[in-house]
Amino acid sequence: MTEPLHRMSARAAAQAIAAGSLRSQALVEALLARIAEREPVVQAWAHVDHEGVLRAAREADSRPASGLLHGVPIGWKDVIDCAGLPTGCGSPIYRGHLAAIDAGAVAMSRRAGALVLGKTVTAEFAASQPGPTTHPLNPAHTPGGSSSGSAAAVADGMVPLAIGTQTGGSVIRPASFCGIVGFKPSYGLVNRYGAKQLADSFDTVGTFARSVDDTALLVAALTGRDDFAGLTPTRPARVALCRGSDWAEAEEPMRAALDQAMARLSAAGARVSTLELPPLFAGMTEAHKRIEYFELARALQHEYRTQRDQLSAALVSRIETGLAMQPSDYEGALALRENARRAMADVLAGVDLLLAPAAPGEAPQGLRSTGKATFNRLWTALGLPAITLPHSLGPNGLPLGLQFIAGPRRDAALLAHAGWIEALLAFPRHPRAGGDPDSPRRAAPPETGSPGCPPARA
Amino acid sequence: MTEPLHRMSARAAAQAIAAGSLRSQALVEALLARIAEREPVVQAWAHVDHEGVLRAAREADSRPASGLLHGVPIGWKDVIDCAGLPTGCGSPIYRGHLAAIDAGAVAMSRRAGALVLGKTVTAEFAASQPGPTTHPLNPAHTPGGSSSGSAAAVADGMVPLAIGTQTGGSVIRPASFCGIVGFKPSYGLVNRYGAKQLADSFDTVGTFARSVDDTALLVAALTGRDDFAGLTPTRPARVALCRGSDWAEAEEPMRAALDQAMARLSAAGARVSTLELPPLFAGMTEAHKRIEYFELARALQHEYRTQRDQLSAALVSRIETGLAMQPSDYEGALALRENARRAMADVLAGVDLLLAPAAPGEAPQGLRSTGKATFNRLWTALGLPAITLPHSLGPNGLPLGLQFIAGPRRDAALLAHAGWIEALLAFPRHPRAGGDPDSPRRAAPPETGSPGCPPARA
Repeated sequence: MTEPLHRMSARAAAQAIAAGSLRSQALVEALLARIAEREPVVQAWAHVDHEGVLRAAREADSRPASGLLHGVPIGWKDVIDCAGLPTGCGSPIYRGHLAAIDAGAVAMSRRAGALVLGKTVTAEFAASQPGPTTHPLNPAHTPGGSSSGSAAAVADGMVPLAIGTQTGGSVIRPASFCGIVGFKPSYGLVNRYGAKQLADSFDTVGTFARSVDDTALLVAALTGRDDFAGLTPTRPARVALCRGSDWAEAEEPMRAALDQAMARLSAAGARVSTLELPPLFAGMTEAHKRIEYFELARALQHEYRTQRDQLSAALVSRIETGLAMQPSDYEGALALRENARRAMADVLAGVDLLLAPAAPGEAPQGLRSTGKATFNRLWTALGLPAITLPHSLGPNGLPLGLQFIAGPRRDAALLAHAGWIEALLAFPRHPRAGGDPDSPRRAAPPETGSPGCPPARA
Repeated sequence: MTEPLHRMSARAAAQAIAAGSLRSQALVEALLARIAEREPVVQAWAHVDHEGVLRAAREADSRPASGLLHGVPIGWKDVIDCAGLPTGCGSPIYRGHLAAIDAGAVAMSRRAGALVLGKTVTAEFAASQPGPTTHPLNPAHTPGGSSSGSAAAVADGMVPLAIGTQTGGSVIRPASFCGIVGFKPSYGLVNRYGAKQLADSFDTVGTFARSVDDTALLVAALTGRDDFAGLTPTRPARVALCRGSDWAEAEEPMRAALDQAMARLSAAGARVSTLELPPLFAGMTEAHKRIEYFELARALQHEYRTQRDQLSAALVSRIETGLAMQPSDYEGALALRENARRAMADVLAGVDLLLAPAAPGEAPQGLRSTGKATFNRLWTALGLPAITLPHSLGPNGLPLGLQFIAGPRRDAALLAHAGWIEALLAFPRHPRAGGDPDSPRRAAPPETGSPGCPPARA
C-alpha cells in the first residue's frame, strides 16, 4: 500500500522537492487536508497559517531548492515566536498577541528553507495546565505535554516535524505517549531566543519527528550545523539501564519494555548493564522543582503582577511558592545540581548511553493532566541530551517510549546510536489512527534477535 | 555643601520616601531637570518616559511605601523590554518598536516599588557599534559600552540606578570608565527574560550605581532576594592579583592603581598575593569569541535574514563568521570553557577575591569604539560574579576602575567584601561634571593606611 503524502518523512519530502518530483504546495495541501479531517478530534493546533504556508510553498516551488528543508513545513509550539503569527502561550493573556519577529530557531529553519505551518497547542506557559489536545490514538487520553500539539500533530500525520520546549519533561513525555521520536538536545544546543521563558536554567528547545533520521535533519536545520545532517547509525558499545530514585513510579508495562529492549540490545552485541545512581541524586527531583519554581516566579512576574486573575490557580501557586522560597533553598538546589553534574560525568565515563523510562507508562486517561515528568526532570536539570524512541504498545493500546541519554554535548553520538537502535527495535514508524493504513502492534514478548551485525537502515 | 537631590543615593531616597520626608515626584523632577540640563551633551537616553514616570511617582506618593525601592526610578538599557515603551536595541530595525510586556527583571523591580525612568542608549544589539553617548567627564571620550547610556546616566546624576547587560565586558568596562560601581552578577542571578539575546551562554543582566550599598539594594529588588538587601561590609581575608594572559594590554596607570590597591588591602590586614592562571586559560579569549559569534549568528538570524542592510558592517561580519564556523570549533570552545571552570574552582579555593583590571586604562578618546573587553571576557565566560569599584583618576582625568571577582554564586560575599573595600579606598562616591559640586581627585601615590580594623561604613 502506498504511503499517503501526509505520512511522508521530512527527508523524503525534502529530497523529492529538491529533485522536482514533488511540489511543496502538494505536500502542504495534503497536510492541510489531514488537519481539516482530524483537527476536530485531535485539536493539536492553536493556529494554522493556511494562507501563509500555501503562499510560502508556492514561493519555494518557484525557485531552486536551497537548504536542508526546502519546502518542508514545521509546526511550532505556541510559546515560540513566528513573525506575523499569534503567540498564545496557552493563556488567555496572550490571545491574539502577534509576534513581531521570528525566534532564533524559527529564523534558522527558514534559512534552511523550511516553512511555518502554524502554532501547536501548549499547556499554559509550557507549564502544567493542559490545552484541548487529545491523544491521536484515543481521544479519551492525554497526548502528554506541555508540547501537546506538537507531539499529537506529528504522530497524527498533520506535519512531519514540530518543535517543542522542555523544562521538566515537556518534549520526551508527549513524544513517548504519542509513539514518535522526541529529542531534547543538550541545554543550549538549539537557540532559545523568542521562546517564552519558564525556567532559564532548564528551558530547552526540542524536536518531534517520526524517525531518528528526520530528527537529525531537523536539528541540522535548526542549528545550522551540517554535522547533524548525515549521521551514520552506530551500535552503542555499552548501554546501562538507569532506574533512578523514582523507579517505583515505573509501571509494569514500561519495566517490561525496558527489559525487552535490554535483551535485544544485548543480543545485537551491545554490552548492557544496570546501574544505580549515587545517593545524592535522590535529592534531584526536589532540587529541580525548587529551581523551576524560583525561576518561573521571576520570568512570569509581569503576568503575575498585571493579570493574575487570568492565570490558572496551579500556576499562581507555583509562582507564589517561588516568590516565598528562601534564597538559600534555591542556591542549595543549584549547588546540588553542580554536584550531580560532576557525579554524572563519572557515571557516563563508563557507558555510551543510559536507558531509562521516557514516562511511567502509557498516556493516562483524561485531559486534566498531561502526565508526570518523573523520568525526565533529572536529565533536563543536568542539561544532558535525551531522546525517546517508540518501543511497543501497552495494554491500553497506547505507545510506550524508551528514553536514551548520552553525556554532555554528545548529541550527535546520541542520534547516531538512536538511529541504530530504532532499526534494531523496528517499532512501526508511527502508530496510525484516523483512517490511516497500518495498525499498530501490541507489545511482543522478548525476542532474541540476531546479534552482532547492525541492522540495515530503514 | 548640601548634596543636590539628583545625587542622592537610592538607599537614602528610598528611606526618605518611606519616611515621608521626600516625595518620589520631587526626586523624579530633580532627575528630569538634570537630564534636561545635561542630555544635550551626554546623550545617555534612547527614550525618557517623562509623563509615565511622573505619573508613577505621584501614584507612589499616594500610597504607603512597600518594597525596597518604593518611588525610586531606574534606567533600563534599551535592549530590555519595559511595557509600553520602545525597545530600540540601538538599531534602526527596532526604531519605535513598542514592548508589550515587562522583562522579568523590570517586573521584579516594579514589585519592589521602583519606577521606570526610561531607556538608556546601547550599542547596536549590545554588541560593538556605539551609540551617541559621551563620557560625562569629557565628551570627547567614550563612556564605554555596550551599556553606554546606563553607565553615563548614573555617573552624571541623571538617575541613581541603571541596568545593563554584559556578554563580553558591557557592564564592567563602562562602569570603570565612568567612575561608578558596575556589577555583573553570576550568570543567571538576575532574570534575563525580555532582554534581547546576543550570546545565550554569556548574556548577563548587571547593574550600575554610585555605591556598593545601592548596588546590593538594587540586586535585592531585581531578584526578590532579601539576602542582598542588608549586607555587612566584610574584610576579605585573602585577595590575589590575577594578571591573566592579556596583561600586556594593561596600561601603566591601571597597573599602578592595582599596585596601590594591593598595598592598601595588605596594610588593612588582607593577605595579598599574585597568581598566574594555568596555561589553558590562554585560549579563553579566543574561545569566548567563538562562542559569542556562533551564538549571536543564531540569535540575530531574523534580523540578518530580513533586514541585513540595516545592520552595521561589523555586526554582519560577526554573524557571518558565526554562521561559517565549524561546529567542532564551537564545541571545542565550550569544552575549553568547562575545563577552565573546573581549573578556576581550584584557583578560587585559595582566595576570597581576585583582583584584576576592569579595563586596560582610562576611557579612550573618540566615540567610534567603546573600548576593549580584554579584562572582562574571561569572567563573563566563566559566569563568575565581578564588580568594579572606582579607584582613582588617571593622567587624562578620567576614572580607573578595579575589578574584583569571586567564586561561583558568591555574589553576596563579593558585594560584602566590595562594600568594605569601597570604604577602605575611599574614592569620592562619583566624579562630578556639568556644574555639580566636588571635583574628582587625581591618582594618589600609594598610602599605607591603618591595618586591621575594617573602616566604618559610609
